[in-house]
Amino acid sequence: MTTECTTTNSAAGDRTTIRRHPERTATSREALAAILDEATICHVGFVHDGSPVVIPTIHARDGEVLYLHGSPASRMLRGLAGGIDVCVTVTLVDGLVLAKSWMHHSLNYRSAVVFGHATVVDDPKAKVEALRIVVDHVQAGRSTQSRPPSPKELAATLVLAVPLTEFSVKVRTGPPIEDPDDLPLEWWAGVIPLTTHVGAAIASA
Amino acid sequence: MTTECTTTNSAAGDRTTIRRHPERTATSREALAAILDEATICHVGFVHDGSPVVIPTIHARDGEVLYLHGSPASRMLRGLAGGIDVCVTVTLVDGLVLAKSWMHHSLNYRSAVVFGHATVVDDPKAKVEALRIVVDHVQAGRSTQSRPPSPKELAATLVLAVPLTEFSVKVRTGPPIEDPDDLPLEWWAGVIPLTTHVGAAIASA
Repeated sequence: MTTECTTTNSAAGDRTTIRRHPERTATSREALAAILDEATICHVGFVHDGSPVVIPTIHARDGEVLYLHGSPASRMLRGLAGGIDVCVTVTLVDGLVLAKSWMHHSLNYRSAVVFGHATVVDDPKAKVEALRIVVDHVQAGRSTQSRPPSPKELAATLVLAVPLTEFSVKVRTGPPIEDPDDLPLEWWAGVIPLTTHVGAAIASA
Repeated sequence: MTTECTTTNSAAGDRTTIRRHPERTATSREALAAILDEATICHVGFVHDGSPVVIPTIHARDGEVLYLHGSPASRMLRGLAGGIDVCVTVTLVDGLVLAKSWMHHSLNYRSAVVFGHATVVDDPKAKVEALRIVVDHVQAGRSTQSRPPSPKELAATLVLAVPLTEFSVKVRTGPPIEDPDDLPLEWWAGVIPLTTHVGAAIASA
């Protein structure tokens, strides 16, 4: 197996042009969907008083829309609801890449960076549907095994939609790349795979 | 076991005051260090042309400094070297929290949000030491089992230091919190633990 590093972007925007290691850019909308669907959390970046803020939160994808949710009182979601720019980044780490030289150490990973304006989902039916998708993202089928929101709960929840139109996907797989001069070095080199282990369920008391 | 949610902040800054679920704020510098040290990656947020950008990258902590590194040509690191604000967020997901109602679904997690100005590490000795810490963060002891950077490699690498002075830590543990009215519902509720599984090493060919 060799290091796979495919290229291109989905969106024409300048900011989704991968400059560093462009060979790690993945091509397809399917790659974006797979990363968003597999990840448990995303990191939402926004600008607050001119400074960057990055907050982890639960997300869920519905076709070509990414949903975020939270309290209408949350600083993050209040800002997003006002229509400021957002950058949502999702990263899955697949392995430690250990090379014969310090500088070729790396990680195997799959990451997606989405840029966009978040809009508020106001229609109650659409809002419930978005929340259903979020709950089912936490665990598939879970929305049918728990109580849907009451009107009061629904009013106390802000749901935001970010269109999946401007994004980039970057993937690194495979062994370390070595400088030819380093190949004779005796150090062990290779990959330590990392995966998420799902433990035994712990029922509430 | 009940849901643990301790409170307070290390820094006096307004932006590190946790507004949402303040009971999930962890107290200590030790909690910050433990999260930064355990995580394989961080998400670095910065403002580019007025818009937020969030990029995953390898980090490493040395006492009360966080190191980032990369190519001097990288858009992210060029910006940071210029002294713009940065927000570095690290999140460890520990479990899926499945409640009897949709709205009490959550995650167990530990997260750290660091705000600061990145400064360039220029002194060659300090730069090598920072890179050693980064390599040893990928795998403990690895710096002694691989080749240190050549002067050329060192020149081609930008190392940045972010002081760990303004930060907040947020932790959620334990079972779902339920509305009392939901307790009689028959749905299963509890936690699905998630951990990182380290797989068998794959040696380079």
